[in-house]
Amino acid sequence: MGFSLLPKEFNLFILFNKQAQYAVDAAVLFSQLTAKGTFDTETVQKMRDIEHQADEICHEIIQRLNKTFITPFDREDIHALTTELDSVTDMIYTIANRMKVYKIVAIDADLMEFSIIIEKSVRALAKAIEGLSDSKHPNVVIDSCIEVNRLENIGDTMRDAILAKLFETAHDPIFLIKWKELYQFAEMVLDICEDVAHIVESIMVKQA
Amino acid sequence: MGFSLLPKEFNLFILFNKQAQYAVDAAVLFSQLTAKGTFDTETVQKMRDIEHQADEICHEIIQRLNKTFITPFDREDIHALTTELDSVTDMIYTIANRMKVYKIVAIDADLMEFSIIIEKSVRALAKAIEGLSDSKHPNVVIDSCIEVNRLENIGDTMRDAILAKLFETAHDPIFLIKWKELYQFAEMVLDICEDVAHIVESIMVKQA
Amino acid sequence: MGFSLLPKEFNLFILFNKQAQYAVDAAVLFSQLTAKGTFDTETVQKMRDIEHQADEICHEIIQRLNKTFITPFDREDIHALTTELDSVTDMIYTIANRMKVYKIVAIDADLMEFSIIIEKSVRALAKAIEGLSDSKHPNVVIDSCIEVNRLENIGDTMRDAILAKLFETAHDPIFLIKWKELYQFAEMVLDICEDVAHIVESIMVKQA
Repeated sequence: MGFSLLPKEFNLFILFNKQAQYAVDAAVLFSQLTAKGTFDTETVQKMRDIEHQADEICHEIIQRLNKTFITPFDREDIHALTTELDSVTDMIYTIANRMKVYKIVAIDADLMEFSIIIEKSVRALAKAIEGLSDSKHPNVVIDSCIEVNRLENIGDTMRDAILAKLFETAHDPIFLIKWKELYQFAEMVLDICEDVAHIVESIMVKQA
Repeated sequence: MGFSLLPKEFNLFILFNKQAQYAVDAAVLFSQLTAKGTFDTETVQKMRDIEHQADEICHEIIQRLNKTFITPFDREDIHALTTELDSVTDMIYTIANRMKVYKIVAIDADLMEFSIIIEKSVRALAKAIEGLSDSKHPNVVIDSCIEVNRLENIGDTMRDAILAKLFETAHDPIFLIKWKELYQFAEMVLDICEDVAHIVESIMVKQA
Repeated sequence: MGFSLLPKEFNLFILFNKQAQYAVDAAVLFSQLTAKGTFDTETVQKMRDIEHQADEICHEIIQRLNKTFITPFDREDIHALTTELDSVTDMIYTIANRMKVYKIVAIDADLMEFSIIIEKSVRALAKAIEGLSDSKHPNVVIDSCIEVNRLENIGDTMRDAILAKLFETAHDPIFLIKWKELYQFAEMVLDICEDVAHIVESIMVKQA
């Protein structure tokens, strides 16, 4: 495959890897926050900065895509990939920010467990995206995508168990409203990661 | 229209009909569950199996689509159709599974009414999709899509009336949170059915 | 750019301007409703009529698109633009209708503030869309899209502040459930406006 035919100024793979790295950075900060178990505004501020920078890369990819005639894979796939990848970082930041809005002080172990799965999933995504530019090892891409799907299934089961526990034990409806939303947002990150993995898989299959 | 030009190994219509049949199966199980009025885990387990099998058909359609050059209609439409159709089955299963998570024992008549509309809508969809391969009777497709739209409107009105009643009568906020979500999920099934019908209509119009 | 090459019967720009005008009409009615501070069914009925008419324009655009070979810009962009623009009007109507369902009598100043931002955003969108047919002043389009993005950021901050206040002051969980949803719907209108602006920007960049 002749990726070298691409004009240097639109090195899509470098931009995608950068964008994926921002998602990893956001996921790592989120893991650190939940591992500490206490909310802190500083970490959320850092996540906000990352979210802004990730947004700019996404915007840059779309701008360049619109001005470029030859692309290494389908335009629709590039557009979908950058948009969905942006949603991953957005959604991770949204959880942390919503905790701030809800004045959450103590973060429970269930959200921490979610953050571990999220970090794993985002790292697998970053590996899959990195693999897209290396046509010699397609299995790295495929295996990483399978891992993202596996983690999404785990997340589904986790959310069900955690929601069941929440509805059984919580007696304060306002407490329940807050945490129900936070857990559902956490599971949504894994859903969005799976969407990204599907796009990556489609790109791979078309290139085969 | 020369559907016979297609390679036999990618008989898209057979796969789409199978996928639609899984959606019908899920809707029928959901109707049976609500008609009985008591939650039972066994039915949800059956729905889960159907949801998995439907998922595999969807995956198969996308895999084959990515490897096929000639398709009977636009690639984007095929992709959108299989993905949205998968969401119908997913969403029906999600309602039943959420009832399990919320430890719902008695299912009320309002959800049963919804399940009847859902079953009608999914059956109309299956008829529309079956009609796509029969170019001699386009009206079957068009009429079925109109029926899906009609049922979505009924669903909207039903959800509004049911939510109004729920907010007027429920005094336990946690009870309200559970049922509000279940009714909204039920209405979302009809929304997704309408999305599928729109895709089918687009395919029809392009072929005319 | 040769827009004059288009067949007269599919004057896309006239249809898009009409569709945008319906969104403006809905936003203006919503502003008037919140400014008055008391819910009235008549305004919601008017919004419902607008929503139906807007729906028909959207349907007409898609029908004609499917039957037209030459389009002034990418088919996918036309489809996405009309669908997302329809969602703007839908979502504004949904807020008003949900207030009816929840039997809201007094509308608070926070929702009024949101309605002002929404009206500004929808007006900026209408200007951007109008500008698409005037290739001599691309800056009007670009500036309007930037304005929509700016208003979405304001909306995000507003929603966070309003939700924080709601969770701090509301003691009745059912009251909180109602208003949480209404504010989140209001912010969603601005998100959808931003999606429309992104589509408009893409169209502009491709034409440059």
